[in-house]
Amino acid sequence: MIKNTKVNAAILIIGNEILSGRTQDTNTSTLANWLNSIGVKVSEVRVVPDEEKIIVDTLNLLRNSYNYVFTTGGIGPTHDDITAQSVAKAFDRKYQIHQEAFKILEAYYKPGEFNEGRQKMVKMPENAKLILNPTSGAPGFSVDNVFCLPGVPSILKSMLGGLKNEIVGGEPILSHTISLKTVESEIANSLTKVQEDNKDVEIGSYPFFHAGKLGVSIVLRSENQSKIDTCNSQILAFIKEKNIEIVDR
Amino acid sequence: MIKNTKVNAAILIIGNEILSGRTQDTNTSTLANWLNSIGVKVSEVRVVPDEEKIIVDTLNLLRNSYNYVFTTGGIGPTHDDITAQSVAKAFDRKYQIHQEAFKILEAYYKPGEFNEGRQKMVKMPENAKLILNPTSGAPGFSVDNVFCLPGVPSILKSMLGGLKNEIVGGEPILSHTISLKTVESEIANSLTKVQEDNKDVEIGSYPFFHAGKLGVSIVLRSENQSKIDTCNSQILAFIKEKNIEIVDR
Repeated sequence: MIKNTKVNAAILIIGNEILSGRTQDTNTSTLANWLNSIGVKVSEVRVVPDEEKIIVDTLNLLRNSYNYVFTTGGIGPTHDDITAQSVAKAFDRKYQIHQEAFKILEAYYKPGEFNEGRQKMVKMPENAKLILNPTSGAPGFSVDNVFCLPGVPSILKSMLGGLKNEIVGGEPILSHTISLKTVESEIANSLTKVQEDNKDVEIGSYPFFHAGKLGVSIVLRSENQSKIDTCNSQILAFIKEKNIEIVDR
Repeated sequence: MIKNTKVNAAILIIGNEILSGRTQDTNTSTLANWLNSIGVKVSEVRVVPDEEKIIVDTLNLLRNSYNYVFTTGGIGPTHDDITAQSVAKAFDRKYQIHQEAFKILEAYYKPGEFNEGRQKMVKMPENAKLILNPTSGAPGFSVDNVFCLPGVPSILKSMLGGLKNEIVGGEPILSHTISLKTVESEIANSLTKVQEDNKDVEIGSYPFFHAGKLGVSIVLRSENQSKIDTCNSQILAFIKEKNIEIVDR
């Protein structure tokens, strides 16, 4: 398999509960970490309400801009779960019962329990490909480069293993962190010079307050370990010169 | 003061560390809850990388689409902090030292400590209005309807009090939650009927797994308490009929 060196993705979080502040999204961080590990960089995240036109328009824009799009939320049985019908509309496909998903849930529930509410969860865009759900039965699905996952974090996590072979990533994105007992302003100029010398490495600087310690974590990110190493050496050099202490974080 | 009934906002999270999954954003939920309490509804959230062109383009789009835009992140002293210069570019204003901010930080730091790195934090778009920072000195700023806040959650929180009088909201958005010992599919059809009868109330249904309890929280949101009450009565009626238990959550 030929790997592209740059593969990117967008995450589309669908749900009024995130926009209202009621629910704290954690799926972005779960998906981003997992995607990095298989060589996919998240370039953009959007959170949109449960409104069909907004979901359809945003999805069409994102799926044409990025290699992959991952949606979370809106695939349950209630009236506010409109992701599947919106994806069908975005791709101009029929929204209908998926026979394989129907069989899975028919077998999953006790006789008589696979009621009308639950049957909504097997309505999907025509020819959608299932994403199996080892936690609670109801599958997610993909259409072309769009992968639709549930909003409940524990269920979403349990579905990623089955997705791995569907995603063709580039080189995994490597990172290295150096945590320092200092403040950002002490290292700002030196770090700017290192960034100018190492344009292919993404250098982030993040202040922290942790267990009574105040410090800065410098994060180096690249697909290329030797570029990270070069960058790291330059940072260690100015840290030594400035007599700044390295700390555990 | 005449209040609009609908005032909306977008949140623009600026930072590679959120897109990489390294940092879990919590500012969205903080800002959304606070904005709801002063009658501003968050309609969209975007997370973008530390790249000037993307920040400028996204900001220009959002500030022309919503009543308010709140940015978080990118106002520190390091090379990856490019929010202020990006906002200046978006508004076609000079990016220069803000005299009032300079005086604040000159007084905040000990003599000799207000170094070149820290002086970067007082460079802002021309005529920016300061947002005072009671935690760590360095102010945020606003230009027209765009409010720029830091990424560190505790500092951001401490700055909201000083912002309250700058934002003119509509009616506060009220909410009421009913938590039930049931599963979504049991109530899906009844809830759909209640939503159809109460189009002005936003009804959300959220499964939960908490302390060994499995259930569903129904969240009703509206600016109008009596509309929430009507909706609530209809839900209580079908719950009673179905013999579903209400639980604490």
